[in-house]
Amino acid sequence: MKTLQVIGIGAGNPDYITIQAIKALNSCDVVFLMDKGPSKDSLIDLRRELCERYITERPFRFVEAQNPERERGDVDYQASVQALNRDKQQVFERLINEELADGETGAFLTWGDPALYDSTLRILEQILASGAAQFDYQVIPGITSVQALAARHKVPLNRVGRSVEITTGRRLAAGQASDADSLVVMLDAEDSYRQLRNQDLDIYWGAYLGTADEILISGRLDEVAEQIQQVRRQARQTHGWIMDTYLLRKPQA
Amino acid sequence: MKTLQVIGIGAGNPDYITIQAIKALNSCDVVFLMDKGPSKDSLIDLRRELCERYITERPFRFVEAQNPERERGDVDYQASVQALNRDKQQVFERLINEELADGETGAFLTWGDPALYDSTLRILEQILASGAAQFDYQVIPGITSVQALAARHKVPLNRVGRSVEITTGRRLAAGQASDADSLVVMLDAEDSYRQLRNQDLDIYWGAYLGTADEILISGRLDEVAEQIQQVRRQARQTHGWIMDTYLLRKPQA
Ligand SMILES: C[S@@+](CC[C@H](N)C(=O)[O-])C[C@H]1O[C@@H](n2cnc3c(N)ncnc32)[C@H](O)[C@@H]1O
Ligand SMILES: C[S@@+](CC[C@H](N)C(=O)[O-])C[C@H]1O[C@@H](n2cnc3c(N)ncnc32)[C@H](O)[C@@H]1O
Repeated sequence: MKTLQVIGIGAGNPDYITIQAIKALNSCDVVFLMDKGPSKDSLIDLRRELCERYITERPFRFVEAQNPERERGDVDYQASVQALNRDKQQVFERLINEELADGETGAFLTWGDPALYDSTLRILEQILASGAAQFDYQVIPGITSVQALAARHKVPLNRVGRSVEITTGRRLAAGQASDADSLVVMLDAEDSYRQLRNQDLDIYWGAYLGTADEILISGRLDEVAEQIQQVRRQARQTHGWIMDTYLLRKPQA
Repeated sequence: MKTLQVIGIGAGNPDYITIQAIKALNSCDVVFLMDKGPSKDSLIDLRRELCERYITERPFRFVEAQNPERERGDVDYQASVQALNRDKQQVFERLINEELADGETGAFLTWGDPALYDSTLRILEQILASGAAQFDYQVIPGITSVQALAARHKVPLNRVGRSVEITTGRRLAAGQASDADSLVVMLDAEDSYRQLRNQDLDIYWGAYLGTADEILISGRLDEVAEQIQQVRRQARQTHGWIMDTYLLRKPQA
């Protein structure tokens, strides 16, 4: 039998890694590194560093693979995600079948927590269901960008007894904002927070959370929306890419 | 100046602790242990063990305090929470003013992540606002019970491109279920999932997640609701208390 460890490494700060993740890494013969193109080189570097630093108990090897990219632009979003997942599934199948020997353990490292807006678990289930590869697997949670956001702003995610919704910029842009008391937005490529101006909301915004490049802005949305948009545009230019997340809610009565 | 570290220790498995939390613990002179009554003794023990195991770099002391309990039964929920938080605030003020010397660092350890259904951050903000004590503080995220639930069931929290709402049993019982695609319920004292039967939902339920007593049940809600209710009642009797969390959603089309 082959074993896979799907390990959440936390979303930014290398110190977000848990003891459980470190133990899981130390059970591995192979660590799979999925390359996401030049703009994300620093993320691959972080994974490599974590492994070299924390895998101390036995020899292991890295296996690199090209991570397919989602088709962007004027395409159907759900369809492009499905196509991407098919391509990813083939890459994963090949890695498991060809790069992992029977009796070996391999690790997939996921950014943040594998349960939040990450396709690894879904792909592994599909592979098992299709019969294209056989393996056992474990899931190791990791600190999400949502938690990094709250910790760095020192704010609770929820108000007393109220709910929190985690959603995507795409849903917000499509007018699918819920009436949840606190709303966390991820995967926002288009400054969708701007749509919720004039509703007396507070925003807690963070980019590159937990890293040396971290940027935090908070305040009344109507007052800081433009600042965020400018800082965001500039940061994306400087780095070539951006990861940002934000929390929106009405100020405490 | 005094410094406080609000440290998420993860929700159950001692290995959920992060390197960041371990480093923060090692900056502390004092660790405050809040006693929650006999039923929660094992939780205090876990905190104690974590400190004794991981604080290796310098001497530190434990300071214990009685944690006030919320008035239960036929009282207004919001009012009883507010009264509880006032009492807690006084305990915290006393600890900071009397048990921590100038220049020292003290730790409050929170179960899971301090940002999720935990009052510590709110209380510290209120103390600072009232001027009753002065201090700097840092917040260290921890693995929540929500993440433990997803990892142990090996399920993603969200479906592709969809949202996740985290809410309370109380809200569910009051008919305040949202239309979020995935719904995570915490703090449910009353088997409120039963209200959502006959809606073709799947449930992923977990109790004592990450501990040796962990119980996992999943399936079509209509088929497992009774089993969960029975297992829950029995586990609560055996242990004297229960912590459980669950995820509800429509099965993938
Ligand atoms: C594909 S999702 C992966 C989320 C990840 N699994 C987690 O647990 O945070 C990527 C999104 O996460 C958010 N994100 C991840 N890391 C972040 C960071 N360090 N700072 C701000 N946002 C981040 C951004 O919203 C980004 O669009
Ligand atoms: C006051 S809240 C604290 C939540 C905590 N801050 C966190 O991040 O998970 C307590 C609720 O968390 C959930 N919970 C905490 N630990 C749990 C565990 N190990 N297993 C199942 N549920 C847990 C239960 O729903 C419980 O009612």
